[in-house]
Amino acid sequence: MKLHGYFRSSASYRVRIALNLKGLRAEHLPHHLRKGEQNAPTYLAINPQGLVPALENDAGAILTQSLAIIEWLDETHPEPPLLPKDPLRRAKVRAFAMALACDTHPVQNLKVLARLRQLGVPEEKVTEWAAWANREGLAACDALITREPGPFCFGAAPTLADLCLVPQLFNARRFGVDLAAYPRLMQAEAAAKAMKAFTEAAPDQQPDAE
Amino acid sequence: MKLHGYFRSSASYRVRIALNLKGLRAEHLPHHLRKGEQNAPTYLAINPQGLVPALENDAGAILTQSLAIIEWLDETHPEPPLLPKDPLRRAKVRAFAMALACDTHPVQNLKVLARLRQLGVPEEKVTEWAAWANREGLAACDALITREPGPFCFGAAPTLADLCLVPQLFNARRFGVDLAAYPRLMQAEAAAKAMKAFTEAAPDQQPDAE
Repeated sequence: MKLHGYFRSSASYRVRIALNLKGLRAEHLPHHLRKGEQNAPTYLAINPQGLVPALENDAGAILTQSLAIIEWLDETHPEPPLLPKDPLRRAKVRAFAMALACDTHPVQNLKVLARLRQLGVPEEKVTEWAAWANREGLAACDALITREPGPFCFGAAPTLADLCLVPQLFNARRFGVDLAAYPRLMQAEAAAKAMKAFTEAAPDQQPDAE
Repeated sequence: MKLHGYFRSSASYRVRIALNLKGLRAEHLPHHLRKGEQNAPTYLAINPQGLVPALENDAGAILTQSLAIIEWLDETHPEPPLLPKDPLRRAKVRAFAMALACDTHPVQNLKVLARLRQLGVPEEKVTEWAAWANREGLAACDALITREPGPFCFGAAPTLADLCLVPQLFNARRFGVDLAAYPRLMQAEAAAKAMKAFTEAAPDQQPDAE
């Protein structure tokens, strides 16, 4: 398999964790987002959205959208599972993941922040925007799992929720968010960071890290 | 079941279509987003994200995030299916849905547009922002299904992709986007709009419509 990604892309980071947890290897093909390489015609032919990640499977099929890729990995390589078996529990895990993947990350990604700058928004307000998006999402996520048994977001093993949480916390720190307000999230992150599958997927461990 | 929603919320609209396709009834509990009712403490106790929709199932469990709710509906009420059986096809449908639900809709929702206004962005630039987000997402989606057999996004029956597309097109029109550029999406919408499950879920058909 080939993973088109970028070391600092938190959506790519989610998929790297999933591959590691499943014990799968993929060739990493970096696309430098700050240099706009995701908008090259050769890459747009792979993913018309011009976003990373995209996964090419062994048959050459291309999958896009990190959560769709992770669901596919979980369906085709079921062990260890990244979603519970019970439908209601699955819905809870997916809702947590989507609170980050839908309502938090896209509001503070590179493309949106660049658009704010084009509108003449000053740099400190751009950073404040990104911090705001992170605080809103993380506060809701902390509340969503406050009564869930730990140490991970949903119990004793990592799920899709943790795969979204850890990269989002990486972003939140970059934007100066005070994470002490989210004790349950910090507990889940600590559990994740004790696992190689998470630490080896971190941005600073990637070949294209700067 | 009870559906907490808002007539114009496109995430609520997705769930309304899913319920209709599955032949399920839910009591509709409207929360007026423009009046800020989603931030009332009683609603935040239901959904700490302060977003609609939220679904209370017959056992009183609360589900949030429209795509997580729809996946739950599909797992617990499998007919008619909203996702294909084949894992790779499922991934394609989910990726299309997420290109709208993650990268398009949250960038142009009420909360983000209100934040732009707070930053002093003039009204015509706010509308242009929303139109830009819609154009980016719709152009990618049109490309994603250009070789897929119609008339729906992915073949002869509606899927999760169509459930996200139709409400997003409703938004795009509100923001003045020229939809002639997306012929494949227009084909899918025409097929959807021939079905009662879609037309009866439309914003102007809801009890709280203004």
